[in-house]
Amino acid sequence: MMEYLKQCILKDGKLKPGNVIKVDSFLNHQLDTDLFVKMGEEFKRRFADKNINKILTIEASGIGLAIIAATFFGNVPVVFAKKTKSSNIADDVYTADVYSYTHQVMNHIVVSKEFLNQDDHILIIDDFLANGEAVMGLLELCKQANASVEGVGIAIEKGFQKGGQLIREKGIQLESLAIIESIDDTSITFR
Amino acid sequence: MMEYLKQCILKDGKLKPGNVIKVDSFLNHQLDTDLFVKMGEEFKRRFADKNINKILTIEASGIGLAIIAATFFGNVPVVFAKKTKSSNIADDVYTADVYSYTHQVMNHIVVSKEFLNQDDHILIIDDFLANGEAVMGLLELCKQANASVEGVGIAIEKGFQKGGQLIREKGIQLESLAIIESIDDTSITFR
Repeated sequence: MMEYLKQCILKDGKLKPGNVIKVDSFLNHQLDTDLFVKMGEEFKRRFADKNINKILTIEASGIGLAIIAATFFGNVPVVFAKKTKSSNIADDVYTADVYSYTHQVMNHIVVSKEFLNQDDHILIIDDFLANGEAVMGLLELCKQANASVEGVGIAIEKGFQKGGQLIREKGIQLESLAIIESIDDTSITFR
Repeated sequence: MMEYLKQCILKDGKLKPGNVIKVDSFLNHQLDTDLFVKMGEEFKRRFADKNINKILTIEASGIGLAIIAATFFGNVPVVFAKKTKSSNIADDVYTADVYSYTHQVMNHIVVSKEFLNQDDHILIIDDFLANGEAVMGLLELCKQANASVEGVGIAIEKGFQKGGQLIREKGIQLESLAIIESIDDTSITFR
């Protein structure tokens, strides 16, 4: 548990009906740059023994965390998967389906084949992990490219949804800087 | 002119029919973290005399450059405007219309009223400036919020399109790290 992030969640997270927590004010609309730098540093600490040459994330809100993290991994390049509703996918991209529970729509995510390949040792970064749809999609892209996945780094995991378990069952090192065990109308419990 | 960026454009930019240059490999799909850090540093140099307390950008590809720049301005927060096709806009946001020439569609951009206000001294950052639609939209959001705009920082400006002129005519300090004067099928000329 990263104490600074936990304090941001407790201080500025807004509880909404349906186990929803809004973290717009520091994580995914306004970005608390101090917090991002601390999170990037923490990812480096947790994946210090891994030889990572590229960071993979997904637009839009993963990008800020990914590039700040990259500065702690020797300025490795960042690649972000793009979302598209079109099923008309070019053949020079890797693609996976990602269901958005928030918007109740199926998105396709794509990465150009140029930017992901068998020589890559990938750290996947994203801001939020709930059902794991986005990360599973990114893992699928890495599989298609024969890239090695060295780990997955997440800012906030909702521990009561299935994403974390799905990734850990694959034997992948998953590091979530804060894991929320439960949310109700008035309080948050961390794991 | 920032020499390192110019070399990236000459080495890795791909010329396409219709005065288009693709910079996917270092600016807006894969991000060259080294380059981003150098650009962030250069923005600080060019806006050193301005008292900036927040950076405003637009999803998705502006986010990486904005947060790296923020680390050179004392870790000020970054706010990114979100794009939406819906004209069903909540009343707790500022909104502006932004026409996308690339996708030939009208987008609305929104920023929560919470994150932009009259005490803000804003640096607007984006990766690309062509017709200026995105920046003009961000300026409109700042106007609605009564925020002060201290300047606009752009990675690559297409000098042969109207965006740069529109912004400079408003008396706003616009700093583009590379300005492309012309593109044809085989070569790029910088201003």
